[in-house]
Amino acid sequence: MSQSGDVFGAMLTDAFAVARGFGRRPLAGGRLPRPVIEIVERDDGLINGLLAESYFCEPDQWPPYDHRALDRVRGRVLDVGVGAGRVALVLQDGGVAVTGLDISAGAIEVSRARGVRDLVHATVDQHATAGERYDTFLLLGNNVGLLEGRDRARAFLAALAGMASPGAQIIAQGTDPYGTTDPVQVGYHARNRELGRLGGQLRLRLRYRELATDWFDYLVCSLDELAELVAGTGWVLSDVDNADAPYYLVTLTPQS
Amino acid sequence: MSQSGDVFGAMLTDAFAVARGFGRRPLAGGRLPRPVIEIVERDDGLINGLLAESYFCEPDQWPPYDHRALDRVRGRVLDVGVGAGRVALVLQDGGVAVTGLDISAGAIEVSRARGVRDLVHATVDQHATAGERYDTFLLLGNNVGLLEGRDRARAFLAALAGMASPGAQIIAQGTDPYGTTDPVQVGYHARNRELGRLGGQLRLRLRYRELATDWFDYLVCSLDELAELVAGTGWVLSDVDNADAPYYLVTLTPQS
Repeated sequence: MSQSGDVFGAMLTDAFAVARGFGRRPLAGGRLPRPVIEIVERDDGLINGLLAESYFCEPDQWPPYDHRALDRVRGRVLDVGVGAGRVALVLQDGGVAVTGLDISAGAIEVSRARGVRDLVHATVDQHATAGERYDTFLLLGNNVGLLEGRDRARAFLAALAGMASPGAQIIAQGTDPYGTTDPVQVGYHARNRELGRLGGQLRLRLRYRELATDWFDYLVCSLDELAELVAGTGWVLSDVDNADAPYYLVTLTPQS
Repeated sequence: MSQSGDVFGAMLTDAFAVARGFGRRPLAGGRLPRPVIEIVERDDGLINGLLAESYFCEPDQWPPYDHRALDRVRGRVLDVGVGAGRVALVLQDGGVAVTGLDISAGAIEVSRARGVRDLVHATVDQHATAGERYDTFLLLGNNVGLLEGRDRARAFLAALAGMASPGAQIIAQGTDPYGTTDPVQVGYHARNRELGRLGGQLRLRLRYRELATDWFDYLVCSLDELAELVAGTGWVLSDVDNADAPYYLVTLTPQS
């Protein structure tokens, strides 16, 4: 198995070829195109597959909170984790000045091929040194996860603060993981807390065909935990939309 | 991760609940039902996801060779690896006396719940001691794979011979794996041969959520290799249908 490398990009590139119906595509038995599936493995051995076509879905297939997120957008937008560009394309078509950011070179290439004009291949920390300023930061597709945990959350939010125009906002979508009674999940959360981690601080890696990323943290947290992570960062939780619980949408604004 | 156990059965049980739209189902974030995906991991780290709904697909979604296989059926049938019963149900509805065999208790339960009347939870070796006789053995859904490799092929075909009525036939579907130029596949085949294994003698395990099977062999082989495996077993390769290559359908009949 090849460690590291652009696993997400390789997966999106194949999924894009399947969606278009031409180009090099994964085949079953060398002949039949098959759906591209993103495999997410957790460090306790839990493994899940997700249909990669969801990264390409049109607005009529979006969850309702994604539409409500876009209603809040104003000014210049940084789409953090642009992926296949599903959100950036809709904003761009609506005349919004949107920049797509991703750490995956393959995601950047797929977004470019699909028509996203302004793209940056970088981490938020790297991009914060570029001198650009934004009015809205979008963290959709469960990308509250990018806060990772207590340490990374502070650095991540600081990087966004460094790119923030006066009165900027972060619009982020997350999922409260604690409604479950599944012993596999409840046990994982308990072990995490014993280790001093947040309960839903998932240790994950992506796998796609012969590729695997290194292990990384990805955060699913409650709104209370999110409020704690935000405290003292210069951002405040100024709005919470919990209408589709356990999925939520939050707006962070600069502390006045 | 829990080793062994009925991984395939747990996966089919969830997929059946999703297909019916009620019962305990896998949920994303504890709320949205998600498609059930069977994850197949190879011992070199290659990993693939497959939509479990394919085990439930109706005849109009079947590959054409499955229909041609059913045209060959006669007499009393043993469906080896009945799975969710997709083939057995069609035969039964057509008035054929069909028995579904599976080593997965969950597969047997799903097939029973879907209406398959005659089911046996056993290996072919175990069932060969029961004194039943069949006119047709079906190995569809790529189940030439159950021959595993040189050693198991002889024992597997002997078990079927022990349950064969005079003039019985085996109808089996396989896939020739050697058309690819993918270095991951070509390299795997070469390493297998260096180890004295057949090129496409895959070492696999199934994973589903926190469950994983032990590693097992599953064979994808060329028609030439299949002919070699069959030689001297008392069965002969009496018909080959290669119209949908690399997928093929073979009929084995007793050596006269």
